[in-house]
Amino acid sequence: MHILVTNDDGVNAPGLLALAQEMRKLGQVTVLAPERNWSASGHVKTMHRPLRVTEVILADGTTALASDGAPSDCVALALLGLLPDSVDLVVSGINPNANVGHDVTYSGTVTAAMEAAIWGIPGLAFSLDPPGDPVEKVEYITAARIAGKITKQVVEQGLPKGALLNVNIPGLLEQDIKGILVTRQGLRVYRDQLDRRNDPRGKPYYWIGGEAPTGIPEEGTDIGALAAGYVSITPLDLDLTACEVIEKIKDWDWSDD
Amino acid sequence: MHILVTNDDGVNAPGLLALAQEMRKLGQVTVLAPERNWSASGHVKTMHRPLRVTEVILADGTTALASDGAPSDCVALALLGLLPDSVDLVVSGINPNANVGHDVTYSGTVTAAMEAAIWGIPGLAFSLDPPGDPVEKVEYITAARIAGKITKQVVEQGLPKGALLNVNIPGLLEQDIKGILVTRQGLRVYRDQLDRRNDPRGKPYYWIGGEAPTGIPEEGTDIGALAAGYVSITPLDLDLTACEVIEKIKDWDWSDD
Repeated sequence: MHILVTNDDGVNAPGLLALAQEMRKLGQVTVLAPERNWSASGHVKTMHRPLRVTEVILADGTTALASDGAPSDCVALALLGLLPDSVDLVVSGINPNANVGHDVTYSGTVTAAMEAAIWGIPGLAFSLDPPGDPVEKVEYITAARIAGKITKQVVEQGLPKGALLNVNIPGLLEQDIKGILVTRQGLRVYRDQLDRRNDPRGKPYYWIGGEAPTGIPEEGTDIGALAAGYVSITPLDLDLTACEVIEKIKDWDWSDD
Repeated sequence: MHILVTNDDGVNAPGLLALAQEMRKLGQVTVLAPERNWSASGHVKTMHRPLRVTEVILADGTTALASDGAPSDCVALALLGLLPDSVDLVVSGINPNANVGHDVTYSGTVTAAMEAAIWGIPGLAFSLDPPGDPVEKVEYITAARIAGKITKQVVEQGLPKGALLNVNIPGLLEQDIKGILVTRQGLRVYRDQLDRRNDPRGKPYYWIGGEAPTGIPEEGTDIGALAAGYVSITPLDLDLTACEVIEKIKDWDWSDD
């Protein structure tokens, strides 16, 4: 079992170290992660420039690889032959913020798992819904233990081809986590606002600012599970067809007038 | 009717000009597009740096806005209040390559339309499946005419909230296009390969290379429609839940052992 560990916060992020250490209990681990933070940078395939890969040493003394590509590029590099051994499974995280609802297409953590699904192997994205900022080390260790438990099930039971798991873990002490629920994707409520400022030369620039997103904590969803103190596992795939809309628009009028 | 026109190839791309000109027949048009090419760069929300917006003149003498953000950032800027008038509809393209199957989460053209859906207004992505390279001007004009026809229907009939349309147009003369089909997302077959090279100092770098993707031209899908000479309209939404996988993994064993 050869597990690729990546993330979107960069190779030196504490969540990645906790995840890699837990994965070593399940098999051979290679860490290949971005050099820098790629939060909310989507599902990237870098085609307009070449990518570099360098060896780095993590805080626990183990060797990792860092790339100047996006999380999904790291997965593509590994699966297309950069590594001498073929990869059986990709895990991504642990992200220090939940990735729920509509976050999934933005999230570098989740799109790394999407890239694994594209190439036909299981991908698991792990994110932590922190009660505080910064995230405490104990929360990463708890989240990593839960990630290990879920990954073990994927190793034993497999996942259908093209599927990935989006896992969100509440930032609670282990004894306070109520259990694990399999959920569907919920509805995020974004509260972004445009923040216009002027630079020292009087020219405007714009931050996408505003409050952190909330969501509708409906039962059965990722957002509902986290709100109730459960770990949420949402199986995703890359088919975005809105089937019920197909029927609605089939009768549109295409005559020229 | 205030229509925002954007793309992922950059504000000076010929496909954007053709699309903007056609949209002016349907209402007020604002062009706000990236300064540079953002192909295959996914669904981005730029949060780690501010964005700039500058006025530029397009080849037909009209004024447009260019941003150093991604296509989805351009849509967010416009919808969060950069423009004095509120936007009713977002169109993106015309991309000089098809965006079908699993392309949709990578595609800047499609993720711009996703961003519109996130903010609750209709988003339409238009891409051209070119028989040749470079794409001929006549193909853009044909594709723009078809984009206008489809956008007119959306204006008249509306789209369910959260839905977007991913439209692919075959690069054929208008009389050779067989019609318009409403489709589901098909299966892409990627043929990426890792291309390892050494720089002049002997250090390796890596291109994600290989052949262009193909796809399974199944009837009822976007890929099947294009292969048969039809325009494909695939309604998408941002719910990626793999519902049939939920049942499969509900009985996994979470006991500690």
